[in-house]
Amino acid sequence: MDVQIDYGRLFSDDGAAFVPSPVRAIFKNYDFSRIISFAGGYPSPDTFRTDDILAAARDAFRAYGPGILQYGATEGAMQLRQAVSRKYGVPVDNIRITTSSQQGIDLCARIFVNPGDAVFVSQPTFLGAIQSFRSYRANIIGVKDTGFQAAITKARDEGLVPKFIYVIPDFNNPTGETLSLEARREIIGVARKESLMIIEDSPYRELRFSGEDVPSMYSMAPDCVLHLGSFSKILAPGFRLGWVFGPRQVLAQLVACKQSVDLCPPMLDQYIAAGLLDDGRLHDNLRNTVELYRGKRDFMLRMLEKYMPSGVSWTRPEGGLFIFLALPEAIDTVALYDRALSAGVAYVSGAFFHTDGSGRNTMRLNYSFMDKDRIEEGVRILAGLFRDCIV
Amino acid sequence: MDVQIDYGRLFSDDGAAFVPSPVRAIFKNYDFSRIISFAGGYPSPDTFRTDDILAAARDAFRAYGPGILQYGATEGAMQLRQAVSRKYGVPVDNIRITTSSQQGIDLCARIFVNPGDAVFVSQPTFLGAIQSFRSYRANIIGVKDTGFQAAITKARDEGLVPKFIYVIPDFNNPTGETLSLEARREIIGVARKESLMIIEDSPYRELRFSGEDVPSMYSMAPDCVLHLGSFSKILAPGFRLGWVFGPRQVLAQLVACKQSVDLCPPMLDQYIAAGLLDDGRLHDNLRNTVELYRGKRDFMLRMLEKYMPSGVSWTRPEGGLFIFLALPEAIDTVALYDRALSAGVAYVSGAFFHTDGSGRNTMRLNYSFMDKDRIEEGVRILAGLFRDCIV
Repeated sequence: MDVQIDYGRLFSDDGAAFVPSPVRAIFKNYDFSRIISFAGGYPSPDTFRTDDILAAARDAFRAYGPGILQYGATEGAMQLRQAVSRKYGVPVDNIRITTSSQQGIDLCARIFVNPGDAVFVSQPTFLGAIQSFRSYRANIIGVKDTGFQAAITKARDEGLVPKFIYVIPDFNNPTGETLSLEARREIIGVARKESLMIIEDSPYRELRFSGEDVPSMYSMAPDCVLHLGSFSKILAPGFRLGWVFGPRQVLAQLVACKQSVDLCPPMLDQYIAAGLLDDGRLHDNLRNTVELYRGKRDFMLRMLEKYMPSGVSWTRPEGGLFIFLALPEAIDTVALYDRALSAGVAYVSGAFFHTDGSGRNTMRLNYSFMDKDRIEEGVRILAGLFRDCIV
Repeated sequence: MDVQIDYGRLFSDDGAAFVPSPVRAIFKNYDFSRIISFAGGYPSPDTFRTDDILAAARDAFRAYGPGILQYGATEGAMQLRQAVSRKYGVPVDNIRITTSSQQGIDLCARIFVNPGDAVFVSQPTFLGAIQSFRSYRANIIGVKDTGFQAAITKARDEGLVPKFIYVIPDFNNPTGETLSLEARREIIGVARKESLMIIEDSPYRELRFSGEDVPSMYSMAPDCVLHLGSFSKILAPGFRLGWVFGPRQVLAQLVACKQSVDLCPPMLDQYIAAGLLDDGRLHDNLRNTVELYRGKRDFMLRMLEKYMPSGVSWTRPEGGLFIFLALPEAIDTVALYDRALSAGVAYVSGAFFHTDGSGRNTMRLNYSFMDKDRIEEGVRILAGLFRDCIV
């Protein structure tokens, strides 16, 4: 061939800025059947009910015929929007289906963020949201606790245009912590005062093991909250289905954008999800899932108590998939990573969930994916590594 | 509530620019069981083999277990990449799976287009591509026939940065026409000389009814072509699965972008598609699909001959889903649309497939979706409307 194309020269500035996720890069280089993985936010495959899923697919074809495999509405299949509406008590008009809740995050970023705009995230927060916001060149401002008002005022003073507040109120990824009712009220007050949207990312809300439900922020302020739900943790991640609750004017713009992005969500998956929601099988199984994860959380907490040296502390989540560890400042969890993998354990450094380079002495541990034997073994190995660092 | 949020003020410039597709808007306001629709690019649901699909799902769970419903690789499930590789003779390393070929188009636009960059499309071309390119603020330059070199030179003279050429070489949407081998060679020559990529959008390639296969542009120039394939027309649109063949460096950037967009394609769908590709059922059925569509194309062509007044001409495609009509200049197919719908027939005005406002005297007719009785009735009604306009 005559001329070698210089692909790099052709990439757009935004396109060239995408880098592979450090979390997902982890999974490529190792045979994970041999690694004790506390890294991914993976549900246990024991909770995936393949028989129910096949039955729901068969039922959907029987009830609606092959036509359900045609192109569908960008808004999502009406059967699924109605099933979600019945289950969660939100009007169909305020519900749209997304091809994963990651897509929900990305669509929100795309319809709101001009390059340079300010978005505010509770810190630490979900890496996938940081990546998406960054890809639209948002100024991502990490906020500790509920200091959103001060951060927004400061951003306005600096000439930035604030767009939204992004929070994971229920069992935050990565900390597992839940925002109190008072904190939710305060954030909603700030958003209304500042005339901003709140993106309430809520994939773990139904995985509560203990404590009392706190109302969703959407239920408290449907005028200024976009609530992102997901089937990944209540059915299976492979379905790539999520939902958005929100004001109709915002949803209309989100759907117009989604049309250009992938036209519509996968259809058979939507009908399976609708069937399992409607006949109660999804939530019957979810009760078992919650039991299973409660046991795993309790077990990991016990193992942390048993093995961790002093100077290590951790969160005690009431639900979700993660425990977050704070280590002595001397321990750099990014630098430690290769040693941990060599010793047979994977985790995600807390640094990746911070927007400002902090958090290198923290780490996220997932407890849903591994069985108890491996949880004990993994915690024991990590504790040994920490001891080596502290000495 | 105290303050009404002004959502419009919060939208990004790009986000606010999204408008619903005129084609998809059509489908919302009518009960399509009563309309003769030549509008959508819908496959016939008679070609969707629900039994095969259920069997493939069952087989996948038996062979691989529930773990296939876990989060998967952003690159696509290896089983599907391997099945596509075996079928189409492209190395696995040069194959990625996308969540629909619309997503393939959108990812290409996102990784290549800076606002203002020039992209070149054969005119008329696929509306969904125009929408996506426009959303990244590309300068979309429509090119008749193979006049790409002149258009690129002119764009460079005007200070624009050319990025890629977008073509649908096999049974173009909307015209149904196929690029000759010579035309493909010429476009590849231009791309290499100008050091640009070619996006070869090829969802209809396997729906050939007559004539001889022309080699894909990717097979002729794998260094500068991104080939987009789709399961929508060979399996079912509801699967939302496509593939990209291309140079590894470009695919790596595309995957890094996709990670932030939706993490991975739907998993069960991928395993079903892989199973049906591997055991030959997909292509066994495709032979029936091709027979069915050949009959429908032939029938629509005969009906056009039978009913259309003089002054109306049309393409005679060797495959794909569409016939394209050129009408006397006096007929405005955008203006005519409401009358046609009232008379019970839907089509898409050719104007939507042009980037420059031309094509108002053209229209796209789909023949795959309707049965023969309705094809005859619809053509008869359209011919009557044209006669009314010409008089």
